[in-house]
Amino acid sequence: MKLVIVGGVAGGASAAARARRLDEQAEIIVLERGQYVSFANCGLPYHISGVIDKRDSLLISTPENFQENFNIEVRTGHEAVQIDRKQKTLRVQDLSSGRQYNEAYDKLILSQGASPARLDVPGADHPRIFFLRNLPDMDQIIQTIDGGVRSAAVIGAGYIGMEAAEALRLRGLEVTVIEIQEQVLPLFDREMVNDVHLHLAEKGVRVLLGTSVSEFCDADGGMQLRLNGGESLTADLCVLSIGVTPEVAMARSAGLSIGASNGITVDQHQCTSDPDIYAVGDMVEVTDTITSAAVSVPLAGPANRQGRIAADHICGRESAYTTTQGTAIVKVFEMTAATTGASEKVLRRTGIPFEKMHLWHFGHASYYPGTAGMHIKAMMDPSTGRILGAQIVGRDGVDKRIDVLALAVRLGLTAYDLEHLELAYAPPYGSAKDPVNMVGFVGANILRGDVRFWHAEDFPERGSTGTVLDVRTSREYSYGHIEGAVNIPINEVRPRLAELRGLPQPIFIYCLTGIRSYLVYRILIQEGFSEVFNLAGGWKTFESCHRRIEADSSASVMFTQK
Amino acid sequence: MKLVIVGGVAGGASAAARARRLDEQAEIIVLERGQYVSFANCGLPYHISGVIDKRDSLLISTPENFQENFNIEVRTGHEAVQIDRKQKTLRVQDLSSGRQYNEAYDKLILSQGASPARLDVPGADHPRIFFLRNLPDMDQIIQTIDGGVRSAAVIGAGYIGMEAAEALRLRGLEVTVIEIQEQVLPLFDREMVNDVHLHLAEKGVRVLLGTSVSEFCDADGGMQLRLNGGESLTADLCVLSIGVTPEVAMARSAGLSIGASNGITVDQHQCTSDPDIYAVGDMVEVTDTITSAAVSVPLAGPANRQGRIAADHICGRESAYTTTQGTAIVKVFEMTAATTGASEKVLRRTGIPFEKMHLWHFGHASYYPGTAGMHIKAMMDPSTGRILGAQIVGRDGVDKRIDVLALAVRLGLTAYDLEHLELAYAPPYGSAKDPVNMVGFVGANILRGDVRFWHAEDFPERGSTGTVLDVRTSREYSYGHIEGAVNIPINEVRPRLAELRGLPQPIFIYCLTGIRSYLVYRILIQEGFSEVFNLAGGWKTFESCHRRIEADSSASVMFTQK
Repeated sequence: MKLVIVGGVAGGASAAARARRLDEQAEIIVLERGQYVSFANCGLPYHISGVIDKRDSLLISTPENFQENFNIEVRTGHEAVQIDRKQKTLRVQDLSSGRQYNEAYDKLILSQGASPARLDVPGADHPRIFFLRNLPDMDQIIQTIDGGVRSAAVIGAGYIGMEAAEALRLRGLEVTVIEIQEQVLPLFDREMVNDVHLHLAEKGVRVLLGTSVSEFCDADGGMQLRLNGGESLTADLCVLSIGVTPEVAMARSAGLSIGASNGITVDQHQCTSDPDIYAVGDMVEVTDTITSAAVSVPLAGPANRQGRIAADHICGRESAYTTTQGTAIVKVFEMTAATTGASEKVLRRTGIPFEKMHLWHFGHASYYPGTAGMHIKAMMDPSTGRILGAQIVGRDGVDKRIDVLALAVRLGLTAYDLEHLELAYAPPYGSAKDPVNMVGFVGANILRGDVRFWHAEDFPERGSTGTVLDVRTSREYSYGHIEGAVNIPINEVRPRLAELRGLPQPIFIYCLTGIRSYLVYRILIQEGFSEVFNLAGGWKTFESCHRRIEADSSASVMFTQK
Repeated sequence: MKLVIVGGVAGGASAAARARRLDEQAEIIVLERGQYVSFANCGLPYHISGVIDKRDSLLISTPENFQENFNIEVRTGHEAVQIDRKQKTLRVQDLSSGRQYNEAYDKLILSQGASPARLDVPGADHPRIFFLRNLPDMDQIIQTIDGGVRSAAVIGAGYIGMEAAEALRLRGLEVTVIEIQEQVLPLFDREMVNDVHLHLAEKGVRVLLGTSVSEFCDADGGMQLRLNGGESLTADLCVLSIGVTPEVAMARSAGLSIGASNGITVDQHQCTSDPDIYAVGDMVEVTDTITSAAVSVPLAGPANRQGRIAADHICGRESAYTTTQGTAIVKVFEMTAATTGASEKVLRRTGIPFEKMHLWHFGHASYYPGTAGMHIKAMMDPSTGRILGAQIVGRDGVDKRIDVLALAVRLGLTAYDLEHLELAYAPPYGSAKDPVNMVGFVGANILRGDVRFWHAEDFPERGSTGTVLDVRTSREYSYGHIEGAVNIPINEVRPRLAELRGLPQPIFIYCLTGIRSYLVYRILIQEGFSEVFNLAGGWKTFESCHRRIEADSSASVMFTQK
């Protein structure tokens, strides 16, 4: 059996190694257009910043290692240009010599990844505009920085954009992030990332939201970026990270089936419409765990597992890939943002009914040092309580809770299940009631009718009739509160029930995070108040939702939120 | 409805608060023998060490707070002494006045916890012997340290013993840990904690294993401990942490059913044999998730959830507690040890069939700084692949993986399920193939017959016939290897197959952690070798299993392993 694999990173490398373990006799050839195989593409920003000191540590494997340990031939600098499906041959170009040749295959695995999207504006070919996709991209950026530059623009505030912005800032550059949407990390719901906006500001990163670039021009060795608002910005270098497109040109011209998301269509064994051709990684279309939609999700974890599954099937195993839920995590300086399953915006767009929760919880016991509050949002099916998705933004312990919630999403667990999870607790690691248990408690309270929530974005519509009731201490109230809110601290609620009965109903209660207001909710409901609502996530989520970071021309920080 | 709760910490406090949220009209009284309610008992060691600076931060709630926010009457310094089940009254003693009185109840919740076990040897009442169970215990220990002491003995190396040893050492004391078993953390399998032994030595903590105390005598203001081996030891103070016993004296004399584990028997709603009396927390008997045995498991997480469930049921809800799996975690200086589900020793004792795996994996991408290898052991059902238990010892990321595996144990997931988990990956947090995925890959390889393991403890029996084959580099081999092993590095295996065929069979392969040896296993099996075995966890697990930390009289570190 002769297996040819196009692409030697992530999915391709995994497939090659797995195929060898299952079939010692197979002839296995990996064709890689670039000069490197199996490099740590997720580590690139961290070598720019200097956090990863040695460039060599990004080279996970080498062609020599593949040959010696796996008896796999890796040809770097060889690009597959055409598939002849009838003859089962691949047309290959040796990029160093220009020579073309045919390589026959019994089975072919495509792992070509996705190409960074480009901007279609004048000057978009400016030599100071870089992608951050592979080692040569990284080398060019580092070389440019080392050549002496002061400022950088990062266009696109997704995962790579955030990592690039952090890296460039840590190198001492003045960094401006330009994002066309009204938030960074557009896959998250907006109220979840407002604290990231603030943190970027704290770190001296300027963020221009709702902003796009209409032209790049030369300016003093660097360049000038014309923005859609008419302003302009100078930058010595620019990192473009506005998304990726599955690299399917060769597959398309070979007549392989391409899906609506522009990824290659594959079955559960990663087999394309041609039974001898498989495809894995960023170039394929997958099924979303929650929406069942066909989507393209460029993530390293699924790519690696798909590579393994393709090799399995080629070697006669029945391994199957199921769905992709989009579990992802990103470090933004000292903060961590993570997501799994469907966001609220995806659920709204696809018309899937949901209830949502907002919680604030410390990463570990609050009395043990080194922790901070994390903001958790979780969506569940309003009838079954099935967890549909979650997002967490915070500092310590975010990665742990998103992984536990990722299992909940994948396994179809309900809020009732989360109540009973027995997770590891000691003060340096968690709480006796873990944040994930708390998601279960809150969700189950909703399902059992023990609480009804109101949401920050419903203000000022909700609250325009009735009463907004702040049950924090008068001191907390004095530091900031919802406009028009009446302050009756929780410990005065029982003595002042008569007064509360006299207030316009319904009553929209809130406290700092939603705990005390829930206690008051339970008092009022049992005292016969029929229309009471508890603010999900309390004042902290309210601020995350409504706080606008104003333009401040005196600082290096400016946010335009239109 | 009048609800009386005996014990105001963890389960009792949770029950009280939950009952109030469900029943605003109930009369709720909490009787607490000590002077504090709802304090952070898990935080006590960390205030001794000074990591938690302020004593007040251990006071989570106060009687005043219970009154003001929950309308719950808390009586500290009041001890329940007798239950009259017929009259439904509780005999209570006010410890400050000595006065006794009856308190009627409609429903009673017992949350009396467990008492620290005592040593039945001469001198065991020495005033310098302390427990570490509550705030007064902690205060006494701190006062003794502040009075000027140099040395401490910690008797019993379970969770509290380890935390106490760390705390006392961080306060600058010479610390000796005395443990009757041949390992610290006796709930773990021994080979998992040998690295903890080493780490304790690095931190200057002396550990005496297989050692017990036969007598305590006065000596120079401190005391002298006579050890079972005939040696003796002086210490200025001693922390006794040899386990706990459910505090069931009052329940027993009231005729409530007590289980074989000495905990109170309760149904799924935490109801005792008396339908008006509930019990929660360390004093009750629970069902083990894996063995289905009736056991007592003193852990904060279950206690809190049981309190909630008891309150639910009293207030007419059908909430039910299922099983306890013993998920637990402990920090030992810079290391973390965590466990969930059944250990190998429990599986052996109960005769449950299992396959075991040993893996080594970094907490996050190895090229990103700040990570270390973690040692993972997982047990699964050999026919279904169901995960029965796991233990992890390492530094970063241990807590995350044990929580994910805790879900696997609770939900009955198999190794096949773990292969497909989609966990959050970015270099600072994990790997594209997460350690938990790797447990799945290895387990599935066993189930599918793709690998057969041999285990470190099988040496020297295994290897006495056949060949032990070290496939690491000659340099690695030269630093240390299994006695009698032949060294053929992986990259020379294919060219030297003829030589390998000439070696005595079976072949017991190993490398550093089990990855390269698995590749060689696959080569040999497919080349027709019929008897080949891969060493689970490789040289690192072999060392964890066989390395004996020798007595060294010149250092402050001495281990006696008999």
